[in-house]
Amino acid sequence: MSKYTIGVDFGTESGRAVLVDVSDGREIATAVYPYANGVIDERLPESGVRLEPDWALQDPEDYLRTFQQTIPVVLEQSGIDPAQVIGLGIDFTACTMLPVKTDGTPLCLLPEFRGNPHAWVKLWKHHAAQPEADAINATARAMGEAWLDRYGGKISSEWFFSKALQILNESPEIYAAADRLIEAADWVVWQLTGVETRNACTAGYKAIWSKRDGFPSKAYFGALHPRLASVIEEKMSCEILPVGQKAGGLSEQAARWTGLEPGTAVAIANVDAHVAVPATTVTEPGRMVMIMGTSTCDMVLGTEEHIVPGMCGYVEDGIVPGFFGYEAGQSCVGDHFAWFVEHCVPAAYELEAQARGMDIHALLEEKAAKLAVGESGLLALDWWNGNRSVLVDVNLTGLLIGATLATKPEEIYRALIEATAYGKRIIIETFQKNGVPIHELVACGGLPEKNKLLMQIYADVTGLPIRVSASKQTPALGSAMFGAVAAGKAAGGYDSIYEAAQVMAHLKDEQYLPNPENQKAYERLYAEYVTLHDYFGRGANDVMKRLKEIRYMRQVSR
Amino acid sequence: MSKYTIGVDFGTESGRAVLVDVSDGREIATAVYPYANGVIDERLPESGVRLEPDWALQDPEDYLRTFQQTIPVVLEQSGIDPAQVIGLGIDFTACTMLPVKTDGTPLCLLPEFRGNPHAWVKLWKHHAAQPEADAINATARAMGEAWLDRYGGKISSEWFFSKALQILNESPEIYAAADRLIEAADWVVWQLTGVETRNACTAGYKAIWSKRDGFPSKAYFGALHPRLASVIEEKMSCEILPVGQKAGGLSEQAARWTGLEPGTAVAIANVDAHVAVPATTVTEPGRMVMIMGTSTCDMVLGTEEHIVPGMCGYVEDGIVPGFFGYEAGQSCVGDHFAWFVEHCVPAAYELEAQARGMDIHALLEEKAAKLAVGESGLLALDWWNGNRSVLVDVNLTGLLIGATLATKPEEIYRALIEATAYGKRIIIETFQKNGVPIHELVACGGLPEKNKLLMQIYADVTGLPIRVSASKQTPALGSAMFGAVAAGKAAGGYDSIYEAAQVMAHLKDEQYLPNPENQKAYERLYAEYVTLHDYFGRGANDVMKRLKEIRYMRQVSR
Repeated sequence: MSKYTIGVDFGTESGRAVLVDVSDGREIATAVYPYANGVIDERLPESGVRLEPDWALQDPEDYLRTFQQTIPVVLEQSGIDPAQVIGLGIDFTACTMLPVKTDGTPLCLLPEFRGNPHAWVKLWKHHAAQPEADAINATARAMGEAWLDRYGGKISSEWFFSKALQILNESPEIYAAADRLIEAADWVVWQLTGVETRNACTAGYKAIWSKRDGFPSKAYFGALHPRLASVIEEKMSCEILPVGQKAGGLSEQAARWTGLEPGTAVAIANVDAHVAVPATTVTEPGRMVMIMGTSTCDMVLGTEEHIVPGMCGYVEDGIVPGFFGYEAGQSCVGDHFAWFVEHCVPAAYELEAQARGMDIHALLEEKAAKLAVGESGLLALDWWNGNRSVLVDVNLTGLLIGATLATKPEEIYRALIEATAYGKRIIIETFQKNGVPIHELVACGGLPEKNKLLMQIYADVTGLPIRVSASKQTPALGSAMFGAVAAGKAAGGYDSIYEAAQVMAHLKDEQYLPNPENQKAYERLYAEYVTLHDYFGRGANDVMKRLKEIRYMRQVSR
Repeated sequence: MSKYTIGVDFGTESGRAVLVDVSDGREIATAVYPYANGVIDERLPESGVRLEPDWALQDPEDYLRTFQQTIPVVLEQSGIDPAQVIGLGIDFTACTMLPVKTDGTPLCLLPEFRGNPHAWVKLWKHHAAQPEADAINATARAMGEAWLDRYGGKISSEWFFSKALQILNESPEIYAAADRLIEAADWVVWQLTGVETRNACTAGYKAIWSKRDGFPSKAYFGALHPRLASVIEEKMSCEILPVGQKAGGLSEQAARWTGLEPGTAVAIANVDAHVAVPATTVTEPGRMVMIMGTSTCDMVLGTEEHIVPGMCGYVEDGIVPGFFGYEAGQSCVGDHFAWFVEHCVPAAYELEAQARGMDIHALLEEKAAKLAVGESGLLALDWWNGNRSVLVDVNLTGLLIGATLATKPEEIYRALIEATAYGKRIIIETFQKNGVPIHELVACGGLPEKNKLLMQIYADVTGLPIRVSASKQTPALGSAMFGAVAAGKAAGGYDSIYEAAQVMAHLKDEQYLPNPENQKAYERLYAEYVTLHDYFGRGANDVMKRLKEIRYMRQVSR
């Protein structure tokens, strides 16, 4: 009898369940739940409390509704007997974290805290904790904390303790009421199993934990804030479980939500980007995986430990056991194009797309593809959402240069694509210069499916060949693979992620190869990008930060 | 019996006639003719010959159609007896020039030259003669030509000899066939009177002529190109007539076109911006007139001769007799907002404007007016069409900095308005530092009527009070005033432009005064603008020029 597992992938705008055949990775059925409250960045639901700039929250009930609305659908669609589903894995955006009570109840579900923004889930792209990140970095440097080097010398405002410290600084009552501070990834596994576990992936990449040294010291946390000294013992957990293990069996309640059998194996939580690495066949060094969606996450495995400045971090056994998993990222990729389409595309283009029955992105891609490299005269810095890797600064902003009265929308669109490609090349070169070799790119996520022009531009700008995942939902497939490992060979799954990757992961046959002429033409443009990148990003002219500060003062004074 | 004059204003997109009461400047009737061939910047009419980047041509027949289509209409509308119309004045964009035969026939109307772009009218914003402008400037510096200082040290690619030399360099056969090279302003007066005259205003501001020294020497022109040595004697004229004189009487043919009486006084041609100065009541120093349309022209009178670096030039008696007339300008103002509306405003905004019965500019103004100074976090450099004054460089391009995923169209729109205001302030400060005082701004043209937010931002950024012309068609009124001076007092007009300005020119009662709080807030943003202006404009990073060069090479290689 065939065996199946389900992977549930929690993205920025929606959650997705995929039911997969364990024997070959075939995706049998898929269901998507668009979060009812989406990304909360203007006002809180119900209370209407207004959020400050740079906030981004979510509603934890959207996560539970994802289980309830998608798993029964994939069972129904596939006609599979729930008894044949041997495991369940989940992956999540990170760091996406929330304060909860001892029994797991999110504080934002309690009436007394519902109108307090700090009681809600802080989404990965919540960018309002920069002062806390600055304090974390300054204190670490002052105290000579060795772990700082693991994270490229800088902790991001997106990460766990930046967000935790912001709660403590701005809403001490929420901090006090929070029995636990937890990654949403671990929280949903807790809701499925009834057991609170903590996974090594988010702990390692987002919460300054390592297999060898654990968390930073009480002395360090106490130096940040006296009440933070005992945060690990009080509100987190010293027991961190490696990915690839089983968290527990499905609870009776979760079995009712999903239609699966109670006791079904549930894997330890994982990060959306990281589960994608084995799901794109990558279990060895040299091949960088790019998960390309609203933002991009780049991961590469290394056999040695290297300090790479400005990267998101590296975690031993953090992606695939036996390797150092290096991570970098770009915080504005698909979001960039979505912003452009929402705010900058004229009605005439919308009408043309409608008349031709095309998606507006497809129309822009078609027009942009007709342009030669450099023909628009435009260049952009891809910092509409700050810079996540190399510069690691959320207060950098977007720049477009070279506009004339002849500049057309498709030229700007292409310039934005190219800007993200230049940003990618800086990341790749920084890895390479620091001892982490990269000779191939493997792409997955929504963008490679949607935009062939973008893929070709990435190949031309980086000079590397690009392969694409065969799955259109690689993270969900990866979670299903981890679900199979959680079930184990005895139950019809696998005993390691290597074994699972051998049979369940696939790439498409097609490749994107650099076009030598375009590659040469991009050299000049990339050199200009690097000059502007360094001028605006490395302190020669901090105009972006000053403008952002003025903007912030204006917005909060309203 | 009341006396009337007609002013005809030739703009970038259309020509306009206004019939005015000589006794009080009252505008009795107006008619507009939108040029059938508009601005020709992609392909020539009929032949479809493709133009290179930066070209901008016009069809001289559109100018004749303007007379034929507008003057009969204002006579009809007003019911005035043509015998009561004592004079006619015209003003034109400049330098807008064309090659013609001895009898005035434009070369582009001859079948053998119709498919040659160089046979057509080169519009003021034709920007393809930069190499020629560079040669003109380099040769002048090498030969120590004294006149260079009068033009801020740089001759623009928009000016007469840049365009003439481009014809000679790129199409020697057109240069040879051209018996005359002439400003379109003088050409239309020729068509009206049958007499070829040359006016001091375009000669002084655009063709390096001065009352004291005449044109540059044969030796200088010969150094640019041997065949250019005798250009003045062969194809132009040494007799340059001051503005305010009569060119001649209306010919029989032109009387048939217009319905006016043969012999009606026609004034010497003038420039659109310059006729506006007396038409806005300005006949003394200290009050800068801004003609705000697709581009902006700034004029101020001075009692002394000063060298002001980077300005368009100064001409003794060039605007109002008895004063040095200083001119500066911004090459992208209304064009900037038109570009934005055409290429960057999303369908949702179009729909909102339609639903509310509003112009899209009015909707953007309404939304932008709700923003506090600095609230958008955006800053722009207003160089979408190069920089005309201070930097004098057509190869500079537009820049937008500070964009985030929350950036909205009205924020970009406001940033573009603000950028033009910062550009204005740099011009004002450059005049003031160099001995030309400015204590009030007087605005006319289309923009002040359309956009109150823009006017207030200009007051806030510059710190100066702004008055607005009472006329909605100030240049046409100014031309009608010069028509009254051409007719002279004996015929019911005036003997000088001072007298005409006393009774025919008026300002609105309302003023725009700087808001002290906004003025203070803009200080910080202006300082950032100046830093970027100097970084990108004065050679620290010539990325704009390099990108434009790459773009040019790509476009011509297609």
